[in-house]
Amino acid sequence: MFRACIGRLNHVVRPLLPRLSAVASSRICRPVPQRNMADSKEVKGLTDGEARAACGEPDVSTKDFIFQQTMFRIKDPKKSLDFYTRVLGMRLLKKLDFPSMQFSLFFLGFEKAEDIPSDPAQCTAWTFSRKATLELTHNWGTENDPEQSYHNGNKAPQGFGHIGLAVPDVYKACERFEALGVPFVKKPDAGKMKGLAFIQDPDGYWIEILSPSPMVTIAAADWS
Amino acid sequence: MFRACIGRLNHVVRPLLPRLSAVASSRICRPVPQRNMADSKEVKGLTDGEARAACGEPDVSTKDFIFQQTMFRIKDPKKSLDFYTRVLGMRLLKKLDFPSMQFSLFFLGFEKAEDIPSDPAQCTAWTFSRKATLELTHNWGTENDPEQSYHNGNKAPQGFGHIGLAVPDVYKACERFEALGVPFVKKPDAGKMKGLAFIQDPDGYWIEILSPSPMVTIAAADWS
Repeated sequence: MFRACIGRLNHVVRPLLPRLSAVASSRICRPVPQRNMADSKEVKGLTDGEARAACGEPDVSTKDFIFQQTMFRIKDPKKSLDFYTRVLGMRLLKKLDFPSMQFSLFFLGFEKAEDIPSDPAQCTAWTFSRKATLELTHNWGTENDPEQSYHNGNKAPQGFGHIGLAVPDVYKACERFEALGVPFVKKPDAGKMKGLAFIQDPDGYWIEILSPSPMVTIAAADWS
Repeated sequence: MFRACIGRLNHVVRPLLPRLSAVASSRICRPVPQRNMADSKEVKGLTDGEARAACGEPDVSTKDFIFQQTMFRIKDPKKSLDFYTRVLGMRLLKKLDFPSMQFSLFFLGFEKAEDIPSDPAQCTAWTFSRKATLELTHNWGTENDPEQSYHNGNKAPQGFGHIGLAVPDVYKACERFEALGVPFVKKPDAGKMKGLAFIQDPDGYWIEILSPSPMVTIAAADWS
Protein backbone atom coordinates (compact mmCIF):
# COMPACT_ATOMS: atom_id res chain seq x y z
CA MET A 1 0.00 0.00 0.00
CA PHE A 2 2.38 2.68 1.11
CA ARG A 3 4.41 2.62 -2.03
CA ALA A 4 2.17 5.49 -3.10
CA CYS A 5 2.88 8.02 -0.42
CA ILE A 6 6.54 7.39 -0.04
CA GLY A 7 7.00 7.06 -3.76
CA ARG A 8 5.75 10.59 -4.19
CA LEU A 9 7.86 11.88 -1.35
CA ASN A 10 10.82 10.21 -2.91
CA HIS A 11 10.64 12.31 -6.03
CA VAL A 12 11.08 15.41 -3.95
CA VAL A 13 13.49 14.56 -1.21
CA ARG A 14 15.44 11.53 -2.37
CA PRO A 15 18.85 13.01 -1.49
CA LEU A 16 17.71 13.85 2.02
CA LEU A 17 15.95 10.66 2.95
CA PRO A 18 17.94 7.63 1.97
CA ARG A 19 15.77 5.40 4.14
CA LEU A 20 12.53 6.55 2.57
CA SER A 21 13.93 6.57 -0.91
CA ALA A 22 14.99 2.96 -0.46
CA VAL A 23 11.40 2.25 0.44
CA ALA A 24 10.06 4.18 -2.49
CA SER A 25 12.15 2.25 -4.95
CA SER A 26 10.32 -0.85 -3.84
CA ARG A 27 7.44 -0.13 -6.12
CA ILE A 28 9.45 0.41 -9.24
CA CYS A 29 11.63 -2.13 -10.93
CA ARG A 30 12.26 -0.94 -14.40
CA PRO A 31 15.65 -1.53 -15.94
CA VAL A 32 15.13 1.59 -18.05
CA PRO A 33 13.13 3.87 -15.78
CA GLN A 34 14.18 7.02 -17.61
CA ARG A 35 12.47 5.90 -20.75
CA ASN A 36 9.34 4.95 -18.86
CA MET A 37 9.32 8.25 -17.05
CA ALA A 38 9.63 10.11 -20.33
CA ASP A 39 6.62 8.22 -21.60
CA SER A 40 4.76 8.56 -18.33
CA LYS A 41 1.80 10.45 -19.73
CA GLU A 42 1.01 7.59 -22.04
CA VAL A 43 1.40 4.86 -19.46
CA LYS A 44 -1.84 3.52 -18.06
CA GLY A 45 -2.97 0.78 -15.77
CA LEU A 46 -5.90 -1.51 -16.42
CA THR A 47 -9.37 -0.04 -16.21
CA ASP A 48 -11.79 -1.84 -13.92
CA GLY A 49 -13.45 -3.32 -16.99
CA GLU A 50 -10.16 -4.54 -18.41
CA ALA A 51 -9.30 -6.14 -15.07
CA ARG A 52 -12.68 -7.89 -14.89
CA ALA A 53 -12.29 -9.07 -18.47
CA ALA A 54 -8.86 -10.50 -17.72
CA CYS A 55 -10.29 -12.70 -14.96
CA GLY A 56 -11.68 -16.12 -15.69
CA GLU A 57 -14.36 -17.85 -13.68
CA PRO A 58 -12.71 -20.32 -11.28
CA ASP A 59 -12.98 -23.90 -12.46
CA VAL A 60 -15.12 -26.16 -10.28
CA SER A 61 -12.06 -28.39 -9.71
CA THR A 62 -10.39 -25.54 -7.81
CA LYS A 63 -13.19 -24.98 -5.30
CA ASP A 64 -11.32 -26.56 -2.39
CA PHE A 65 -7.92 -25.03 -3.13
CA ILE A 66 -6.46 -22.96 -0.32
CA PHE A 67 -3.58 -20.48 -0.20
CA GLN A 68 -1.63 -22.52 2.29
CA GLN A 69 1.87 -21.14 2.62
CA THR A 70 4.42 -18.45 1.86
CA MET A 71 8.02 -19.57 2.08
CA PHE A 72 11.17 -17.61 2.58
CA ARG A 73 14.64 -18.53 3.77
CA ILE A 74 15.96 -17.47 7.14
CA LYS A 75 19.50 -17.20 8.46
CA ASP A 76 18.98 -17.94 12.17
CA PRO A 77 15.93 -19.92 13.30
CA LYS A 78 16.30 -18.95 16.95
CA LYS A 79 15.94 -15.29 16.05
CA SER A 80 13.12 -15.89 13.59
CA LEU A 81 11.13 -18.19 15.89
CA ASP A 82 11.43 -15.66 18.70
CA PHE A 83 10.30 -12.85 16.43
CA TYR A 84 7.35 -14.57 14.80
CA THR A 85 6.02 -16.04 18.07
CA ARG A 86 6.87 -13.69 20.95
CA VAL A 87 6.70 -10.47 18.93
CA LEU A 88 4.12 -11.17 16.21
CA GLY A 89 2.00 -13.76 17.99
CA MET A 90 2.23 -16.71 15.62
CA ARG A 91 2.77 -20.25 16.88
CA LEU A 92 5.18 -22.89 15.63
CA LEU A 93 2.83 -25.44 14.08
CA LYS A 94 5.35 -27.93 12.73
CA LYS A 95 9.09 -28.42 12.36
CA LEU A 96 10.38 -30.76 9.67
CA ASP A 97 14.03 -31.81 9.49
CA PHE A 98 15.93 -33.14 6.50
CA PRO A 99 19.30 -34.18 7.96
CA SER A 100 20.71 -35.63 4.77
CA MET A 101 20.17 -32.30 3.05
CA GLN A 102 20.97 -30.25 6.13
CA PHE A 103 17.91 -28.10 6.27
CA SER A 104 14.81 -27.69 8.40
CA LEU A 105 11.41 -26.18 7.72
CA PHE A 106 9.44 -24.27 10.33
CA PHE A 107 5.73 -23.69 9.73
CA LEU A 108 4.12 -20.88 11.67
CA GLY A 109 0.65 -19.42 11.78
CA PHE A 110 -1.94 -17.63 13.83
CA GLU A 111 -3.53 -20.72 15.34
CA LYS A 112 -4.75 -21.64 18.80
CA ALA A 113 -2.43 -23.84 20.86
CA GLU A 114 -5.25 -26.27 21.60
CA ASP A 115 -5.91 -26.83 17.90
CA ILE A 116 -2.40 -28.10 17.16
CA PRO A 117 -2.50 -31.93 17.12
CA SER A 118 -0.05 -33.61 19.47
CA ASP A 119 0.36 -36.65 17.23
CA PRO A 120 3.24 -35.85 14.82
CA ALA A 121 1.62 -37.31 11.71
CA GLN A 122 -1.72 -35.70 12.43
CA CYS A 123 0.06 -32.45 13.06
CA THR A 124 1.75 -32.61 9.66
CA ALA A 125 -1.51 -33.20 7.81
CA TRP A 126 -3.25 -30.54 9.89
CA THR A 127 -0.50 -27.98 9.29
CA PHE A 128 -0.69 -28.45 5.53
CA SER A 129 -4.46 -27.98 5.68
CA ARG A 130 -4.21 -24.55 7.32
CA LYS A 131 -4.60 -21.34 5.33
CA ALA A 132 -2.00 -18.61 5.62
CA THR A 133 1.00 -20.34 7.13
CA LEU A 134 4.53 -19.04 6.94
CA GLU A 135 7.17 -21.58 5.96
CA LEU A 136 10.66 -20.62 7.10
CA THR A 137 13.52 -22.57 5.53
CA HIS A 138 16.72 -22.90 7.52
CA ASN A 139 19.77 -24.18 5.70
CA TRP A 140 21.86 -25.41 8.59
CA GLY A 141 24.92 -23.39 9.41
CA THR A 142 23.90 -20.08 7.87
CA GLU A 143 23.50 -18.61 11.35
CA ASN A 144 27.24 -19.08 11.93
CA ASP A 145 28.36 -17.54 8.65
CA PRO A 146 28.94 -13.81 9.14
CA GLU A 147 28.99 -13.21 5.39
CA GLN A 148 25.65 -14.85 4.70
CA SER A 149 22.41 -12.91 4.31
CA TYR A 150 19.18 -13.19 2.37
CA HIS A 151 17.63 -10.81 -0.15
CA ASN A 152 14.31 -9.26 0.85
CA GLY A 153 13.20 -8.46 -2.68
CA ASN A 154 12.92 -4.70 -2.26
CA LYS A 155 16.25 -3.71 -3.73
CA ALA A 156 17.37 -4.83 -7.17
CA PRO A 157 16.66 -7.42 -8.32
CA GLN A 158 13.10 -6.87 -7.15
CA GLY A 159 10.22 -9.33 -7.04
CA PHE A 160 8.69 -10.40 -3.75
CA GLY A 161 7.81 -7.38 -1.65
CA HIS A 162 6.40 -8.24 1.75
CA ILE A 163 3.94 -10.17 3.83
CA GLY A 164 1.26 -8.29 5.71
CA LEU A 165 -0.63 -8.67 8.96
CA ALA A 166 -4.04 -7.20 9.69
CA VAL A 167 -4.22 -6.06 13.30
CA PRO A 168 -7.01 -4.42 15.31
CA ASP A 169 -5.05 -1.22 15.94
CA VAL A 170 -1.94 -0.31 13.94
CA TYR A 171 -0.80 2.37 16.39
CA LYS A 172 -1.09 0.15 19.46
CA ALA A 173 0.61 -2.74 17.71
CA CYS A 174 3.44 -0.49 16.55
CA GLU A 175 3.93 1.09 19.97
CA ARG A 176 4.53 -2.40 21.27
CA PHE A 177 6.83 -3.33 18.36
CA GLU A 178 8.82 -0.17 18.99
CA ALA A 179 9.13 -0.96 22.69
CA LEU A 180 10.38 -4.41 21.72
CA GLY A 181 13.06 -2.93 19.47
CA VAL A 182 11.58 -4.04 16.15
CA PRO A 183 13.08 -2.11 13.20
CA PHE A 184 10.64 -0.03 11.16
CA VAL A 185 10.78 0.69 7.45
CA LYS A 186 7.84 3.06 7.92
CA LYS A 187 6.23 4.06 11.18
CA PRO A 188 2.45 4.59 11.19
CA ASP A 189 2.68 8.37 11.12
CA ALA A 190 5.59 8.71 8.73
CA GLY A 191 4.82 10.25 5.35
CA LYS A 192 1.34 11.16 4.17
CA MET A 193 -0.12 7.70 4.46
CA LYS A 194 -1.03 7.62 8.16
CA GLY A 195 -2.09 4.48 9.93
CA LEU A 196 -0.02 2.00 7.95
CA ALA A 197 3.39 0.66 8.94
CA PHE A 198 6.16 -1.58 7.71
CA ILE A 199 8.46 -3.44 10.05
CA GLN A 200 11.31 -5.84 9.34
CA ASP A 201 11.91 -9.36 10.55
CA PRO A 202 15.39 -10.58 11.65
CA ASP A 203 16.40 -11.21 8.02
CA GLY A 204 15.17 -7.84 6.82
CA TYR A 205 11.98 -9.11 5.17
CA TRP A 206 9.26 -6.46 5.20
CA ILE A 207 6.00 -6.95 7.07
CA GLU A 208 3.12 -4.57 6.47
CA ILE A 209 1.00 -3.76 9.52
CA LEU A 210 -2.50 -2.63 8.60
CA SER A 211 -6.04 -2.45 9.94
CA PRO A 212 -8.95 -3.22 7.62
CA SER A 213 -11.26 -0.25 8.26
CA PRO A 214 -8.65 2.52 8.09
CA MET A 215 -7.52 1.07 4.77
CA VAL A 216 -10.74 2.40 3.23
CA THR A 217 -9.55 5.97 3.75
CA ILE A 218 -5.96 5.21 2.82
CA ALA A 219 -6.95 3.41 -0.36
CA ALA A 220 -9.38 6.12 -1.46
CA ALA A 221 -7.09 9.12 -0.90
CA ASP A 222 -5.44 11.06 -3.69
CA TRP A 223 -1.72 10.58 -3.04
CA SER A 224 -0.54 12.96 -5.70
CA MET B 1 9.30 -29.25 0.80
CA PHE B 2 10.88 -30.71 -2.26
CA ARG B 3 14.20 -29.03 -1.69
CA ALA B 4 15.10 -32.27 0.04
CA CYS B 5 14.68 -34.75 -2.77
CA ILE B 6 15.98 -32.61 -5.55
CA GLY B 7 18.75 -31.26 -3.40
CA ARG B 8 20.10 -34.77 -2.95
CA LEU B 9 19.72 -35.57 -6.61
CA ASN B 10 21.56 -32.41 -7.38
CA HIS B 11 24.73 -33.58 -5.69
CA VAL B 12 24.87 -36.52 -8.02
CA VAL B 13 23.68 -35.31 -11.36
CA ARG B 14 24.12 -31.57 -11.39
CA PRO B 15 25.90 -31.49 -14.76
CA LEU B 16 23.19 -33.58 -16.39
CA LEU B 17 20.14 -31.86 -15.07
CA PRO B 18 20.42 -28.11 -15.26
CA ARG B 19 16.71 -27.71 -14.63
CA LEU B 20 16.75 -29.82 -11.50
CA SER B 21 19.97 -28.34 -10.25
CA ALA B 22 18.49 -24.90 -10.58
CA VAL B 23 15.68 -26.12 -8.39
CA ALA B 24 18.05 -27.68 -5.91
CA SER B 25 20.01 -24.50 -5.49
CA SER B 26 16.85 -22.91 -4.21
CA ARG B 27 17.43 -24.28 -0.76
CA ILE B 28 20.98 -23.06 -0.41
CA CYS B 29 22.10 -19.48 -0.36
CA ARG B 30 25.54 -19.36 1.10
CA PRO B 31 28.11 -16.99 -0.32
CA VAL B 32 30.85 -19.45 0.65
CA PRO B 33 29.25 -22.85 0.14
CA GLN B 34 32.56 -24.66 -0.18
CA ARG B 35 33.54 -23.80 3.35
CA ASN B 36 30.18 -24.85 4.69
CA MET B 37 30.28 -28.07 2.78
CA ALA B 38 33.71 -28.85 4.21
CA ASP B 39 32.31 -28.35 7.69
CA SER B 40 29.14 -30.23 6.90
CA LYS B 41 29.61 -32.93 9.53
CA GLU B 42 29.59 -30.34 12.27
CA VAL B 43 26.61 -28.41 11.00
CA LYS B 44 23.36 -29.07 12.81
CA GLY B 45 19.85 -27.75 12.81
CA LEU B 46 17.83 -26.97 15.90
CA THR B 47 16.62 -29.86 18.00
CA ASP B 48 12.91 -29.93 18.74
CA GLY B 49 13.68 -28.73 22.25
CA GLU B 50 15.79 -25.84 21.00
CA ALA B 51 13.02 -24.84 18.60
CA ARG B 52 10.43 -24.92 21.39
CA ALA B 53 12.71 -22.91 23.65
CA ALA B 54 13.20 -20.29 20.95
CA CYS B 55 9.44 -19.69 20.74
CA GLY B 56 7.73 -17.20 23.01
CA GLU B 57 4.12 -17.40 24.10
CA PRO B 58 2.05 -15.05 21.92
CA ASP B 59 1.15 -11.84 23.68
CA VAL B 60 -2.55 -11.35 24.37
CA SER B 61 -2.47 -8.18 22.25
CA THR B 62 -1.75 -10.29 19.17
CA LYS B 63 -4.73 -12.61 19.51
CA ASP B 64 -6.68 -11.06 16.64
CA PHE B 65 -3.74 -10.64 14.27
CA ILE B 66 -4.14 -12.40 10.93
CA PHE B 67 -1.66 -13.24 8.16
CA GLN B 68 -3.48 -11.14 5.61
CA GLN B 69 -1.34 -10.80 2.50
CA THR B 70 1.71 -11.79 0.50
CA MET B 71 2.84 -9.23 -2.04
CA PHE B 72 4.92 -9.59 -5.13
CA ARG B 73 5.35 -7.49 -8.23
CA ILE B 74 4.00 -8.55 -11.61
CA LYS B 75 4.89 -7.47 -15.10
CA ASP B 76 1.57 -7.91 -16.92
CA PRO B 77 -1.69 -7.86 -14.95
CA LYS B 78 -3.76 -9.33 -17.76
CA LYS B 79 -1.59 -12.45 -17.76
CA SER B 80 -1.47 -12.67 -13.97
CA LEU B 81 -5.19 -12.12 -13.45
CA ASP B 82 -5.97 -14.79 -16.02
CA PHE B 83 -3.55 -17.22 -14.38
CA TYR B 84 -4.60 -16.72 -10.76
CA THR B 85 -8.34 -16.79 -11.55
CA ARG B 86 -8.97 -19.07 -14.51
CA VAL B 87 -6.10 -21.47 -13.85
CA LEU B 88 -5.70 -21.44 -10.05
CA GLY B 89 -9.26 -20.57 -9.04
CA MET B 90 -8.73 -17.39 -7.04
CA ARG B 91 -10.99 -14.39 -7.44
CA LEU B 92 -10.10 -10.73 -7.82
CA LEU B 93 -11.27 -9.25 -4.53
CA LYS B 94 -10.17 -5.66 -4.97
CA LYS B 95 -8.26 -3.44 -7.38
CA LEU B 96 -6.71 -0.24 -6.11
CA ASP B 97 -5.24 2.36 -8.45
CA PHE B 98 -2.71 5.05 -7.65
CA PRO B 99 -2.59 7.15 -10.83
CA SER B 100 -0.19 9.77 -9.52
CA MET B 101 2.33 7.03 -8.78
CA GLN B 102 1.40 4.94 -11.79
CA PHE B 103 0.76 1.65 -10.09
CA SER B 104 -2.18 -0.59 -9.25
CA LEU B 105 -2.67 -3.28 -6.65
CA PHE B 106 -4.70 -6.41 -7.28
CA PHE B 107 -5.84 -8.45 -4.29
CA LEU B 108 -6.78 -12.06 -4.97
CA GLY B 109 -7.91 -14.92 -2.81
CA PHE B 110 -9.92 -18.10 -2.60
CA GLU B 111 -13.22 -16.50 -1.69
CA LYS B 112 -16.80 -17.04 -2.82
CA ALA B 113 -18.17 -14.55 -5.33
CA GLU B 114 -21.24 -13.92 -3.19
CA ASP B 115 -19.09 -12.92 -0.21
CA ILE B 116 -17.38 -10.05 -2.05
CA PRO B 117 -19.15 -6.79 -1.08
CA SER B 118 -20.42 -4.75 -4.02
CA ASP B 119 -19.95 -1.44 -2.20
CA PRO B 120 -16.40 -0.27 -2.98
CA ALA B 121 -15.55 0.95 0.54
CA GLN B 122 -17.02 -2.13 2.19
CA CYS B 123 -15.11 -4.26 -0.27
CA THR B 124 -11.83 -2.58 0.68
CA ALA B 125 -12.36 -3.14 4.41
CA TRP B 126 -13.53 -6.70 3.77
CA THR B 127 -10.56 -7.51 1.54
CA PHE B 128 -8.09 -6.36 4.17
CA SER B 129 -9.86 -8.50 6.77
CA ARG B 130 -9.38 -11.72 4.75
CA LYS B 131 -6.65 -14.21 5.57
CA ALA B 132 -4.33 -15.44 2.88
CA THR B 133 -4.74 -12.93 0.09
CA LEU B 134 -2.24 -12.39 -2.69
CA GLU B 135 -1.37 -8.77 -3.44
CA LEU B 136 -0.04 -8.26 -6.96
CA THR B 137 1.65 -4.92 -7.62
CA HIS B 138 1.62 -3.63 -11.17
CA ASN B 139 3.90 -0.72 -11.97
CA TRP B 140 2.23 0.64 -15.08
CA GLY B 141 4.07 0.10 -18.32
CA THR B 142 6.20 -2.85 -17.33
CA GLU B 143 4.11 -5.06 -19.59
CA ASN B 144 5.34 -3.10 -22.60
CA ASP B 145 9.01 -3.18 -21.68
CA PRO B 146 10.67 -6.22 -23.28
CA GLU B 147 13.71 -5.86 -21.05
CA GLN B 148 11.81 -5.84 -17.77
CA SER B 149 11.37 -8.89 -15.58
CA TYR B 150 11.07 -9.71 -11.89
CA HIS B 151 13.25 -11.88 -9.69
CA ASN B 152 11.57 -14.96 -8.24
CA GLY B 153 14.01 -15.37 -5.34
CA ASN B 154 15.26 -18.82 -6.25
CA LYS B 155 18.45 -17.82 -7.98
CA ALA B 156 21.04 -15.57 -6.38
CA PRO B 157 20.36 -13.39 -4.53
CA GLN B 158 17.98 -15.77 -2.77
CA GLY B 159 15.35 -14.98 -0.18
CA PHE B 160 11.66 -15.51 -0.90
CA GLY B 161 11.05 -18.99 -2.26
CA HIS B 162 7.45 -19.64 -3.19
CA ILE B 163 3.81 -19.57 -2.27
CA GLY B 164 1.95 -22.85 -1.90
CA LEU B 165 -1.56 -24.12 -2.51
CA ALA B 166 -3.12 -27.10 -0.78
CA VAL B 167 -5.36 -28.99 -3.19
CA PRO B 168 -7.49 -32.12 -2.78
CA ASP B 169 -5.51 -34.14 -5.36
CA VAL B 170 -2.07 -33.03 -6.57
CA TYR B 171 -2.09 -35.37 -9.57
CA LYS B 172 -5.50 -34.28 -10.84
CA ALA B 173 -4.68 -30.63 -10.31
CA CYS B 174 -1.40 -31.02 -12.17
CA GLU B 175 -2.96 -32.90 -15.06
CA ARG B 176 -5.22 -29.92 -15.54
CA PHE B 177 -2.35 -27.44 -15.18
CA GLU B 178 -0.38 -29.37 -17.77
CA ALA B 179 -3.32 -29.38 -20.17
CA LEU B 180 -3.56 -25.62 -19.70
CA GLY B 181 0.11 -25.18 -20.58
CA VAL B 182 1.32 -24.15 -17.11
CA PRO B 183 5.12 -24.46 -16.79
CA PHE B 184 6.37 -26.90 -14.16
CA VAL B 185 9.51 -26.61 -12.06
CA LYS B 186 8.78 -30.11 -10.72
CA LYS B 187 6.04 -32.45 -11.83
CA PRO B 188 4.38 -34.62 -9.16
CA ASP B 189 6.28 -37.75 -10.13
CA ALA B 190 9.65 -36.16 -10.83
CA GLY B 191 12.48 -37.08 -8.47
CA LYS B 192 12.03 -39.17 -5.37
CA MET B 193 9.49 -36.96 -3.70
CA LYS B 194 6.29 -38.13 -5.34
CA GLY B 195 3.01 -36.33 -5.00
CA LEU B 196 4.35 -32.82 -4.71
CA ALA B 197 4.72 -30.31 -7.55
CA PHE B 198 5.98 -26.84 -8.29
CA ILE B 199 4.54 -24.71 -11.06
CA GLN B 200 5.39 -21.19 -12.20
CA ASP B 201 3.19 -18.15 -12.62
CA PRO B 202 3.54 -15.77 -15.61
CA ASP B 203 6.43 -13.93 -13.90
CA GLY B 204 8.24 -17.13 -12.97
CA TYR B 205 7.30 -17.12 -9.28
CA TRP B 206 7.15 -20.64 -7.89
CA ILE B 207 3.91 -22.14 -6.57
CA GLU B 208 4.01 -25.39 -4.61
CA ILE B 209 1.08 -27.73 -5.17
CA LEU B 210 0.53 -30.10 -2.24
CA SER B 211 -2.13 -32.17 -0.53
CA PRO B 212 -2.22 -32.29 3.27
CA SER B 213 -2.49 -36.05 3.89
CA PRO B 214 0.20 -37.22 1.45
CA MET B 215 2.55 -34.70 3.07
CA VAL B 216 2.68 -36.97 6.12
CA THR B 217 4.54 -39.61 4.11
CA ILE B 218 6.65 -37.12 2.23
CA ALA B 219 7.69 -35.30 5.40
CA ALA B 220 8.53 -38.49 7.27
CA ALA B 221 10.62 -40.15 4.57
CA ASP B 222 14.39 -40.42 4.68
CA TRP B 223 15.55 -38.49 1.63
CA SER B 224 19.21 -39.42 1.92
